[in-house]
Amino acid sequence: MTKRIKISLDAMGGDYAPNVVIHGMKIARIKLPYVDFLLFGDLIKLKPLLEQCPELTNCCQLYHTDKVVNNNDKPSHVLRHGKQSSMWLAIDAVARGEANGIVSAGNTGALMAISKHLLGMLHDVDRPAIAGFFPTERGKSVMLDLGANIDCNANNLIDFAVMGEMFARIIFNIENPTVGLLNVGSEETKGNDSIRATASILRQCNLPLTFYGFVEGNDIASGTVDVVVSDGFTGNIALKSAEGLSRLYTRFLRDALLSSWISRLGYLLVRSALRKVELKTDPRHYNGAVFLGLNGIAVKSHGGTDAIGFANAICVATELIVHDFNDRINQELDHIKTVRELSSKVITI
Amino acid sequence: MTKRIKISLDAMGGDYAPNVVIHGMKIARIKLPYVDFLLFGDLIKLKPLLEQCPELTNCCQLYHTDKVVNNNDKPSHVLRHGKQSSMWLAIDAVARGEANGIVSAGNTGALMAISKHLLGMLHDVDRPAIAGFFPTERGKSVMLDLGANIDCNANNLIDFAVMGEMFARIIFNIENPTVGLLNVGSEETKGNDSIRATASILRQCNLPLTFYGFVEGNDIASGTVDVVVSDGFTGNIALKSAEGLSRLYTRFLRDALLSSWISRLGYLLVRSALRKVELKTDPRHYNGAVFLGLNGIAVKSHGGTDAIGFANAICVATELIVHDFNDRINQELDHIKTVRELSSKVITI
Repeated sequence: MTKRIKISLDAMGGDYAPNVVIHGMKIARIKLPYVDFLLFGDLIKLKPLLEQCPELTNCCQLYHTDKVVNNNDKPSHVLRHGKQSSMWLAIDAVARGEANGIVSAGNTGALMAISKHLLGMLHDVDRPAIAGFFPTERGKSVMLDLGANIDCNANNLIDFAVMGEMFARIIFNIENPTVGLLNVGSEETKGNDSIRATASILRQCNLPLTFYGFVEGNDIASGTVDVVVSDGFTGNIALKSAEGLSRLYTRFLRDALLSSWISRLGYLLVRSALRKVELKTDPRHYNGAVFLGLNGIAVKSHGGTDAIGFANAICVATELIVHDFNDRINQELDHIKTVRELSSKVITI
Repeated sequence: MTKRIKISLDAMGGDYAPNVVIHGMKIARIKLPYVDFLLFGDLIKLKPLLEQCPELTNCCQLYHTDKVVNNNDKPSHVLRHGKQSSMWLAIDAVARGEANGIVSAGNTGALMAISKHLLGMLHDVDRPAIAGFFPTERGKSVMLDLGANIDCNANNLIDFAVMGEMFARIIFNIENPTVGLLNVGSEETKGNDSIRATASILRQCNLPLTFYGFVEGNDIASGTVDVVVSDGFTGNIALKSAEGLSRLYTRFLRDALLSSWISRLGYLLVRSALRKVELKTDPRHYNGAVFLGLNGIAVKSHGGTDAIGFANAICVATELIVHDFNDRINQELDHIKTVRELSSKVITI
């Protein structure tokens, strides 16, 4: 029997909250009947929505607060003044052991800052990274960092490589995920100093990690590696550029299929085939980015997603909890630390 | 009557040279009967290919060399030892006034280095940038830099903004192209120091340029602005990530349409609609990146493109020549210089 899981939700985070959160919860519950929810938000807004979903009555504890973190709030401001906000209280439920993980579609910077503050960091990790999934020709890849760290040095990138590899291994259940470093070319001389230094260390160190080398932007979608590592600036822009093109392609396709009566007729026949493509490329099905490096499970949903997207973010959090991700990454980092100390000696000599 | 134009071609540059170059020339010639070619490369390889294309006999002067620039050659090495290469000779034809522009699918770094050396730079531009086109919901946008400059300071980014704006205005024939700076968010506090400094200067300066502000990765495809400015590292990765997703989407679509007999039947009816989508998104139709900031017209074709893609790069070069792009950007930069001096005084005060 699957153990029962509790996920706390920031009901007020995201562009379409709390509507999307409630309906996302409803969709997720069908797939994950062993998950219960702790819901933090404004009861005046939540109650009418919940009344429309009687199936959620027995799986959902409500906690009232009328304070919310806004999208424009600076993380430092939220850390000082946001203690009663739905986001803070939802994360605090994980810190206090009442929930196994938290999902929010709210302000990314604030979510990261409060999570760092309340959950703490894993040993030896300097900075947390945001890891997300990406559709590829071979299935799915992991990409990090997607925006938590604008400027990164070689040590940060190595941490991301190590955490990303573990993440892919545990979540995809594959033995030796390959790790690539995002760059403008595959030759050793390409890129900036920190990228070249990272590659050189990853090639020399005896970390238990399969380092593929540099990968380019087009390698993300072709699935050349299981884990694509980059700084948060580049990763965020690469992901969003690809998402933008995916939306553009879908729009062009729809317009073209509706442009004549012959293509409209054909559309009726290819509709289910197109749905398959949509299932594989729709950003909603890849929604749910994980904060790696935190001592606890926190998943960020895209702020503008709908209920299907939010439900997917809940599934990602559940997957991590089911796999005891936090305990496993903690144990492995201890092991990595020993290897790292050894390799730093090797490099110094 | 359209004036006759001469374009020099590096027949040996690119993954599938000289085949793709010859067949690209053949495709381009149908659209551009007023263009003649100077072809630099190995006659032993070129002659048999040209014999299959009698329509090229009268529009094509051949210049023999058996030296080529390889993809792995460092630009510094090519500058010292590459004087007899097909790439060098093709660029030199422009420098000596024998051709109006040059197209090569060869080593980007070497092409940039030789072009800088032989053609020189425009007044007051520190570094050339690579500008390319991108499909959007509104048509086409310009994006730069696509990989010439890995690290960029605010002055470089401002140069790119100014040159990109002119490029879009002249090529798209629009009055006030909007310019956006690629970032991880639209708020003023987002991004790294050089990006924030660039935005602050572009907002304050009275440059004759419509600065939109920050744009995100997804804004590239949605066509939020006419010109997207970024450093070469980010720009290259954003473009290639989107190209990768475009290819993935096409592949998913083809697989899905062939997956059942009903969808195969439907495919017959939607085929021409799909061709429309392909025309709008196929990277070959956007092939041909322009080196902005050089005192001459040099266009870089993607190394792995086919004849259709190479023909498009020839069309881009032709377009620039027809619009007297080089003279116009030179005149405008003089004007910008005066405005800049004024604005730098304003900022200093």
